[in-house]
Amino acid sequence: MMKDSVIIYSGGLDSTTLLYEEHPRIALAVTFDYGSNHANREIACARHHCSSLGIEHLVIELGFMSRHFSSSLFSGADAIPDGNYAEENMKSTVVPFRNGIMLSIACGLAESRGLKRVLIANHGGDHAIYPDCRPGFVSAMDRAMKAGTYDGVQLAAPYTNLTKADIVRRGTALGIDYGMTYSCYRGGERHCGTCGTCIERREAFSEAGIPDPTVYDCLNA
Amino acid sequence: MMKDSVIIYSGGLDSTTLLYEEHPRIALAVTFDYGSNHANREIACARHHCSSLGIEHLVIELGFMSRHFSSSLFSGADAIPDGNYAEENMKSTVVPFRNGIMLSIACGLAESRGLKRVLIANHGGDHAIYPDCRPGFVSAMDRAMKAGTYDGVQLAAPYTNLTKADIVRRGTALGIDYGMTYSCYRGGERHCGTCGTCIERREAFSEAGIPDPTVYDCLNA
Repeated sequence: MMKDSVIIYSGGLDSTTLLYEEHPRIALAVTFDYGSNHANREIACARHHCSSLGIEHLVIELGFMSRHFSSSLFSGADAIPDGNYAEENMKSTVVPFRNGIMLSIACGLAESRGLKRVLIANHGGDHAIYPDCRPGFVSAMDRAMKAGTYDGVQLAAPYTNLTKADIVRRGTALGIDYGMTYSCYRGGERHCGTCGTCIERREAFSEAGIPDPTVYDCLNA
Repeated sequence: MMKDSVIIYSGGLDSTTLLYEEHPRIALAVTFDYGSNHANREIACARHHCSSLGIEHLVIELGFMSRHFSSSLFSGADAIPDGNYAEENMKSTVVPFRNGIMLSIACGLAESRGLKRVLIANHGGDHAIYPDCRPGFVSAMDRAMKAGTYDGVQLAAPYTNLTKADIVRRGTALGIDYGMTYSCYRGGERHCGTCGTCIERREAFSEAGIPDPTVYDCLNA
């Protein structure tokens, strides 16, 4: 199969699943390091899976984000709110237009290397809080990328209408070791279990009826 | 008038004109330093005009571009081809999806600061060579920015259907000193006069019937 795709790859649960599902077409995985609390642990997981699959892995630093953008993701573990993802207090963790920025850079990289497709693993559970994960954004961004490149680079976001539980089911069927993925916004050695991403992760395994291999601090105190 | 806009501001002729035309609404000017041959001279011009107008000026470094993207803009003055902008050889100077990347970052900055509009000075003469300057890209990107932000940040590209000669006429009527703008892709102390941007600049003044204040190396050898 032709390797024609770049994937935006954080090392978290969703994008790791997409990496394994699409790996025969993936020429390049890009992790964006925007100085968040959890960047180093995510990057270590991303390196592991790319190395396992023999996929080239690039880490691109976006230092300007933590310097000039406002988000509690840049402010240390104590600034991260507890609670469900959909709640108003989780808005403090939003990095404005993050998917737009990551997709644009990945699109430029794709065009630089003659690749035709950019993959991103946003899913339906993200819609409540992140405007740049919703179907309207995805289709407009796909048009912008096609119109703005010589080769008409496409955007593929195959999880846009799936739940995180759907993703866990698909990845488990592929044999992915989710113990080697990292999501927690607090960025500690173990997942905290109480921030928005940890709650979402726990609910996804529970809803999928699949044992959760993650070690959570709040369950081991 | 309410200051509700961010401008993508290189310090060149086009964006300097837009800066002066729109300055009552501009809260922030952003210059992207992507390591091109001419970055330092453009940035010096950008600082000068922002300081004159009392506009906050931010320089954002995009070091990943020169490391990971292919373009002769990153390869020193000797790599820049001579000749007209519309010609095939000028394609080597294209930075893939550059406007998409700059607009996405400016959109995130706008949302971070509660601003509603991003200004960019692409014009009709750019269409021949840059896909990310054309009306189709501009309208799709505007939709992506609106859909991907809480406040519906808008894209304004008022020169999309103007020529560079039109821009020179508008700026001259406003009294802009074009001697204090820099365009040359070779990045020398004086404009070379023979690269694509220099030829375009000379033709614009000539077509507008306005004396060109620029000192060109090729006319002073």
